[in-house]
Amino acid sequence: MTDTACWQAPIAAPCPQHRERALARQARLTKPPGSLGRLEGVAVELAALQASDRPDLDAVAITVFAADHGVCAEGVSAFPQAVTGQMIANFVTGGAAISVLARHLDARLEVVNLGTVAPPPVSDGVVDETIAPGTDNLAVRPAMSPEQLDAALAAGDRAAARAAEAGARLFVGGEMGIGNTTSASAVACALLGKPARSLTGPGTGLDRYGVGRKVAVIERALRRHADPRDPLQALASVGGFEIAALAGAFIGAAARGLVVLVDGFIVTVAALAAVRLRPELRPWLVFSHQSAEPGHVRLLQTLEAEPLLCLDLRLGEGSGAALAVPLLRQACALHNEMATFEDAGVQDRS
Amino acid sequence: MTDTACWQAPIAAPCPQHRERALARQARLTKPPGSLGRLEGVAVELAALQASDRPDLDAVAITVFAADHGVCAEGVSAFPQAVTGQMIANFVTGGAAISVLARHLDARLEVVNLGTVAPPPVSDGVVDETIAPGTDNLAVRPAMSPEQLDAALAAGDRAAARAAEAGARLFVGGEMGIGNTTSASAVACALLGKPARSLTGPGTGLDRYGVGRKVAVIERALRRHADPRDPLQALASVGGFEIAALAGAFIGAAARGLVVLVDGFIVTVAALAAVRLRPELRPWLVFSHQSAEPGHVRLLQTLEAEPLLCLDLRLGEGSGAALAVPLLRQACALHNEMATFEDAGVQDRS
Repeated sequence: MTDTACWQAPIAAPCPQHRERALARQARLTKPPGSLGRLEGVAVELAALQASDRPDLDAVAITVFAADHGVCAEGVSAFPQAVTGQMIANFVTGGAAISVLARHLDARLEVVNLGTVAPPPVSDGVVDETIAPGTDNLAVRPAMSPEQLDAALAAGDRAAARAAEAGARLFVGGEMGIGNTTSASAVACALLGKPARSLTGPGTGLDRYGVGRKVAVIERALRRHADPRDPLQALASVGGFEIAALAGAFIGAAARGLVVLVDGFIVTVAALAAVRLRPELRPWLVFSHQSAEPGHVRLLQTLEAEPLLCLDLRLGEGSGAALAVPLLRQACALHNEMATFEDAGVQDRS
Repeated sequence: MTDTACWQAPIAAPCPQHRERALARQARLTKPPGSLGRLEGVAVELAALQASDRPDLDAVAITVFAADHGVCAEGVSAFPQAVTGQMIANFVTGGAAISVLARHLDARLEVVNLGTVAPPPVSDGVVDETIAPGTDNLAVRPAMSPEQLDAALAAGDRAAARAAEAGARLFVGGEMGIGNTTSASAVACALLGKPARSLTGPGTGLDRYGVGRKVAVIERALRRHADPRDPLQALASVGGFEIAALAGAFIGAAARGLVVLVDGFIVTVAALAAVRLRPELRPWLVFSHQSAEPGHVRLLQTLEAEPLLCLDLRLGEGSGAALAVPLLRQACALHNEMATFEDAGVQDRS
């Protein structure tokens, strides 16, 4: 470890020459200009980010960060807290949504446990980065200490390092943690200076009364501090270990030249915190989908993000991002493999 | 050939027992209920259509129907008419968007030539179903005779038969034909009783003046007949060979138990005509994307269709449908391979 925090590593800018060349190539491919819609811009940005004439996302790394949340004591989730640890086991044995998707994408899947109340059995497939058996109850005191925040950010950075080491070109971050939409909404409210009601939703399935209780919990948490717009303070005060780790992982991934595909509401909150820490991260983020969680659309607007999919997803685990991976790969394949008008002997517009 | 036309073959209804069983399974998978959004309903409908507990779309057949349009004499396209034949060659040699996508999907790709002004070189990859070197000019007289319409419908049915014979479970129909958005808009206007302006757009790239010219051409065509709401009359009067063939192919695919994935504007017009001919076809249609062509959203509403993607695509060739195939396959994989709460030892909601 040096004096410089892991989240301060330099992040390169997309390459303007490769962007220009990719735009010129798109104009010569055998299709009406612009007719591949959003996929053309995606391919061009991937070419600029990878500084390559042939962008390539064959190698994908998916890391699911899991942790428990002390705020569950306030009754903010429809599921019992033991499910966090149980789902870690399900990720590893292959029965969870993200396990199925990772298998079909031929992606590297890693699970990082940052601390659960009921730890899963020791398993080769889980990286143990336990900080504590869950955060403190953010309704009444800071969720974590500054040291715990540093540990979570660093755990995320190490996950990005392992993904890069394994040869990944695309990094997908997922999360699992019963109660973590409460933490994510609180971080979003703190960063955006918005009232709890505007960014709080049903999560895994609260009813109207449950959402009201969640709003009251987040309001209590936000009253605890004066100005938490500082992203580090917001993460420590009302964040979660997995949310902080995601922020660290995204910065670490971009610093190592990996494009980041952002999942739904909770992951987007982590991405927002990371962009507030490091604005140079923003071009490295591709947004996969607009979630059913109502606060997500506001976060996407704040980040000027246009997600690729809108399928009413609200599962987490990185599953929405995994569902969008084939679209990115198809955008690359079209860019790399289509014939030009000259090559194919097809006349261009008259 | 019998006295019964090919488009009168019986079409089965989705299986209600398999739909019920699929719904019950979705509720037991390790995820909050409903959290996979649109993909849950897709998996359930595929299970009902295939009458299977494990829906499967591994084997995909893509057929691109190509033909020329006499209405090009009116200057309704940004591209010269020779491009239709040139693109047929590009499909076969692998340089077109649909060729790239079919390769990556491991899909069977077939091109059916129904008649072009500049036929491509004879090639193994093209099924020659030439009816005439393009339709007549629909602005001034019927695009095709009743016999030519029958031939186009039957050519579509034969393509569906070949796809079924090859073992396909999903049928994607694409189209290529310079000038065919004019024909498609005219068919849509005829079927819906709407004015030309409401369903006419820029196609491959007309400017404002070009769209105005196209609207005037379609208005002239629509004035030629009294009540063309009969789908066969609409197709013969203002349709195209490839549009009629798509309608025949969709009915033929559903009659043989193949799910149909519908592409963009032109293909949706063919699907609408086919559903008007055979309402039992409707459940077999899955809609892949909402195209950038402005009339498409109205057609989708008419068909009560919710497309999976909205990416500003307007290429045709079946490319938008091909882009959505991975989502359907992922929906099946999640349905088939995720663990249940019981199997994984994960607690359900408290």
